[in-house]
Amino acid sequence: MIERFEQTPRMSRIVRHNGVVYLCGQVGNAGESVADQTKECLRRVEVLLEQAGSSPKHILQTVIWLSDMKHFDEMNAVWDAWVEQGHAPARACGEAKLARPDLQVEMIVTAAVADDS
Amino acid sequence: MIERFEQTPRMSRIVRHNGVVYLCGQVGNAGESVADQTKECLRRVEVLLEQAGSSPKHILQTVIWLSDMKHFDEMNAVWDAWVEQGHAPARACGEAKLARPDLQVEMIVTAAVADDS
Amino acid sequence: MIERFEQTPRMSRIVRHNGVVYLCGQVGNAGESVADQTKECLRRVEVLLEQAGSSPKHILQTVIWLSDMKHFDEMNAVWDAWVEQGHAPARACGEAKLARPDLQVEMIVTAAVADDS
Repeated sequence: MIERFEQTPRMSRIVRHNGVVYLCGQVGNAGESVADQTKECLRRVEVLLEQAGSSPKHILQTVIWLSDMKHFDEMNAVWDAWVEQGHAPARACGEAKLARPDLQVEMIVTAAVADDS
Repeated sequence: MIERFEQTPRMSRIVRHNGVVYLCGQVGNAGESVADQTKECLRRVEVLLEQAGSSPKHILQTVIWLSDMKHFDEMNAVWDAWVEQGHAPARACGEAKLARPDLQVEMIVTAAVADDS
Repeated sequence: MIERFEQTPRMSRIVRHNGVVYLCGQVGNAGESVADQTKECLRRVEVLLEQAGSSPKHILQTVIWLSDMKHFDEMNAVWDAWVEQGHAPARACGEAKLARPDLQVEMIVTAAVADDS
């Protein structure tokens, strides 16, 4: 069974299938600092995961896109403080321009359903 | 069990495992307009999903790469008209140059096997 | 159940869940040739997959990032020789600058647990 939450005509913010949760790419508020965009992005990830019956402790993989690799350290400082120790996901980070030029960070999160793990 | 379809020495166009279908990155015809490349890309996705025992209604996640973010609206116009309403996948879209300079859009699709959902 | 191996405060090199293995993005040695970085990247993938109870024959999907698409043929020559014939994964390859400017290739690997397939 496929379950979808927060669906628009273009995408579902959450798709759940076989105990796995797929979130649509999350960003922060355009125009803010890299640190603030990262914080807001992670806050939105938390909200969506909770809604999906998952949590930050159940993230399997996160792919991070930065608009410019020079933001790597600023993003990581927020990420490192946020990751649940003992529950760190697999991760990859590459440079990709995002949907709007004033967006600096996007995260693609795959997680496990909480009661499944 | 892992099942592979349309296998070349380099990759399998379809890999199926545990009720989930992984497609290799799909593109349209090089040199055509962004809209036409998007249409052809989505047509190929449909063919592969059908072959895999899935369908556009069973897509879990689509990651979209555009060679230039200026193509965002042109790609989205085709995408929005194509998505099965009520069955929209999770989605992310970032800028990445593709294997050939005259390719403008590539989609990485993960889907559920149809009888599994 | 989620199992994590080779965990740092930032990420886990291996995450295993529901018979699927997620590796963190793998690279080679910065500054070496594209061919050598690709070989070392694939060697690291092999080591991690073995540790995860998987193998190169069980890769479901590989997303490849190249710092510059001009490296496509050089990376592919190593990849093509490495892929287990009859066990080729789904694959996508796009251009993305990586965490360090002297890194040229990164691979994001998803695989099946071996006894599961």
